[in-house]
Amino acid sequence: MNKIEPRTLPGFMELLPKEQILFNQMKEKIQKSYEKFGFLPIDTPIIEMADVLLAKAGGETEKQIYRFQKGENDLTLRFDLTVPLAKYVTEYYNDLSFPFRRYQIGKVYRGERPQKGRFREFYQCDIDIIGDGELSIINDAEMPSVIYNTIKELGFEDFTICMNNRKLLTGLFEELELQNESVEVMRIIDKLDKIGKENVIACIKDLGIEDKKIDTIIKFIEIDGTTDEKLQKVEDLNISTETFKTGLEELKQVVNYVRNFGVPDNNFKVDFTIARGLDYYTGTVYETFLNEYREIGSVCSGGRYDNLAEYYTDKKLPGVGISIGFTRLFYKLNELQAIKEENKSISKVLVISMIEDKSKAIEVATILRKNNIPTEVYLEEKKIKAKFKYADKLLIPYVIVIGEDEIANNVVTLKNMQTGEQETLKLEDVINKIK
Amino acid sequence: MNKIEPRTLPGFMELLPKEQILFNQMKEKIQKSYEKFGFLPIDTPIIEMADVLLAKAGGETEKQIYRFQKGENDLTLRFDLTVPLAKYVTEYYNDLSFPFRRYQIGKVYRGERPQKGRFREFYQCDIDIIGDGELSIINDAEMPSVIYNTIKELGFEDFTICMNNRKLLTGLFEELELQNESVEVMRIIDKLDKIGKENVIACIKDLGIEDKKIDTIIKFIEIDGTTDEKLQKVEDLNISTETFKTGLEELKQVVNYVRNFGVPDNNFKVDFTIARGLDYYTGTVYETFLNEYREIGSVCSGGRYDNLAEYYTDKKLPGVGISIGFTRLFYKLNELQAIKEENKSISKVLVISMIEDKSKAIEVATILRKNNIPTEVYLEEKKIKAKFKYADKLLIPYVIVIGEDEIANNVVTLKNMQTGEQETLKLEDVINKIK
Repeated sequence: MNKIEPRTLPGFMELLPKEQILFNQMKEKIQKSYEKFGFLPIDTPIIEMADVLLAKAGGETEKQIYRFQKGENDLTLRFDLTVPLAKYVTEYYNDLSFPFRRYQIGKVYRGERPQKGRFREFYQCDIDIIGDGELSIINDAEMPSVIYNTIKELGFEDFTICMNNRKLLTGLFEELELQNESVEVMRIIDKLDKIGKENVIACIKDLGIEDKKIDTIIKFIEIDGTTDEKLQKVEDLNISTETFKTGLEELKQVVNYVRNFGVPDNNFKVDFTIARGLDYYTGTVYETFLNEYREIGSVCSGGRYDNLAEYYTDKKLPGVGISIGFTRLFYKLNELQAIKEENKSISKVLVISMIEDKSKAIEVATILRKNNIPTEVYLEEKKIKAKFKYADKLLIPYVIVIGEDEIANNVVTLKNMQTGEQETLKLEDVINKIK
Repeated sequence: MNKIEPRTLPGFMELLPKEQILFNQMKEKIQKSYEKFGFLPIDTPIIEMADVLLAKAGGETEKQIYRFQKGENDLTLRFDLTVPLAKYVTEYYNDLSFPFRRYQIGKVYRGERPQKGRFREFYQCDIDIIGDGELSIINDAEMPSVIYNTIKELGFEDFTICMNNRKLLTGLFEELELQNESVEVMRIIDKLDKIGKENVIACIKDLGIEDKKIDTIIKFIEIDGTTDEKLQKVEDLNISTETFKTGLEELKQVVNYVRNFGVPDNNFKVDFTIARGLDYYTGTVYETFLNEYREIGSVCSGGRYDNLAEYYTDKKLPGVGISIGFTRLFYKLNELQAIKEENKSISKVLVISMIEDKSKAIEVATILRKNNIPTEVYLEEKKIKAKFKYADKLLIPYVIVIGEDEIANNVVTLKNMQTGEQETLKLEDVINKIK
């Protein structure tokens, strides 16, 4: 028989079980954290009609899309969870309660050129709050609180949630009458970390912008100090456009409420350079950095938008949301050996029988499972050494050995696989010990 | 702006949040039950190379497959989790520990003609144990034990796990020299419930099989009594082929160990008519029925196979596994109002502020969340009635009301939304009460 070579497509993450265990634990922690804030789960199809999913798309996104015919239908695989949310909210508008707080954790697809750390299939973990007509600015302050809790749940302490309000940048460009150049200027400012201040100035100058205006821009992006100092300094710039004033007022409120939500000052800051794309977000924007692992980039980003679903409906549906690109995050953390998970196995116990009859071993395992202890019985006929090696490779923390002596005395031998310590105990005591 | 009509493809399940909550809870219970037996998680791509995924497929399966080109690649969406398992085990053979016990819960795709209760995208929840060269028959007895625990976790008591061994049927047909007719005869026997005994006899006769042989077949499929009586009666048939004897010996061992694994006699039985397709399974086979909802069909099926991955490798990889077609099961149970889940909401508490300043409400919610109580704050400016209606629609069990009096006295008002009961309490007492 001709054999086919089994292989996995490039750009598709596939983990060994010991990594998958960590991946799933982290994913579950994100889910539990989202649920702690009362976000409701939804699960939309991975396949949608092309016209529905591409209602808004264009440019780069469209090129990356998996699109195909099946029978009469022009189909696409979803490339994010936001367009499916827009579809969902419009489709089930009458059945939903607003503000609609939903989370969705699922795979999305982008046919990017594969490269290290970039994936064509990856999990996104999203939350959004959608208002019906309007949505209080306090929701913008709840997002950093969810980010704070989630990143803490993942075991990290030293991280910074950076916030800005897009209206400040828009208002600044209005003041300088640079609305037409704003996209390009923002693109240059985004490179500040990489190319340095002098180069930023030179690049902006190349656009034909006069020195005085460049001065104001640089002054704006160089504002530093504590959060309160920064807010004061930006106010002192005396920029007079309505947009700028609204942005500043919103940002102040968000900062105020973020503290109210219990996020400590050393885990968030105001950063006036964050824009996150000029077309989609209209108010508050977020990025989150693990300070020990800045090279990963933002691990959780998002922002406020005026209109979730304008390509489907006339209803005004403002929202605010965040997203974790989890597959990439896991890949990077794993590479940096920065994963904090401590449970490295599914089974807590492997039961090994020293005699051919496995009845007692099975009985013991059944009792442990009834006590909610994940347990496996080694059922194959192998040398005792192979059985222990199996426990070792799977990082199972305890082995229970059952032989004739144990059965005669109604006890079991418990071996702690980390310490090597071995003791003979009654089964009740084993249960209490392991729990 | 032209609007696109947001719509979901037929055959793709999309639930409202209140149903999604139940769906997710049940799915998690299945996962936790699989983990209690030490099965390891894997997560394979939904997209695979067509030649890899279709190495074995043919006929009906191939017609239903989602297949498309992307760049140079001929791609398919997975149609089950077994072929990806075969790929995975062969690809990572050297990194895995055998017996390899894995679970996978994920979506699969079949472009079937859509009809009520049939889905093109659906979740399968699979476990398999794969041996390296050989695999003890005791593993065949562990599967019913996992089924038993899983179905109980889902809240059902009255169910029957039906077991058979394919070798009995094969051995019977060998004895009767009907190997060539076996597929057709089995197809007829499968209809016993629907068409009745007389019609089964008539149909088999149409195949040109002599009466004496039909007699033996009918005698075999009509065996009844307790499990032990059935095993005795089948032995008394005195069928002499090696295959039959092996099958009987295996089935006896499986029954013996199934009891050992703690499955009560009234939750399993031997059913000699179960075949589950003649090409794939080679030994033990399972089907599971909810006795109050027989119309659903088998809710968990599977069996033993000699060779998981012969189209990829010369290595002999025998295995045994089961699968729950979860999307269809959920759909049917929901339709029959037979879902047993009791947690119908994500949030346990909705905090409502009677005054404009939401600080105290946010503070209270933050404390509840720190105590692991999923909590939401109603942040919009609405009438009090609208706020309570929101809690009501989302089935949130408790509402905390905070007004000037509560703030002054450092208490909160707690309303039980089921009973309507309302009391004024210190926050610590609320936490203890809700926990």
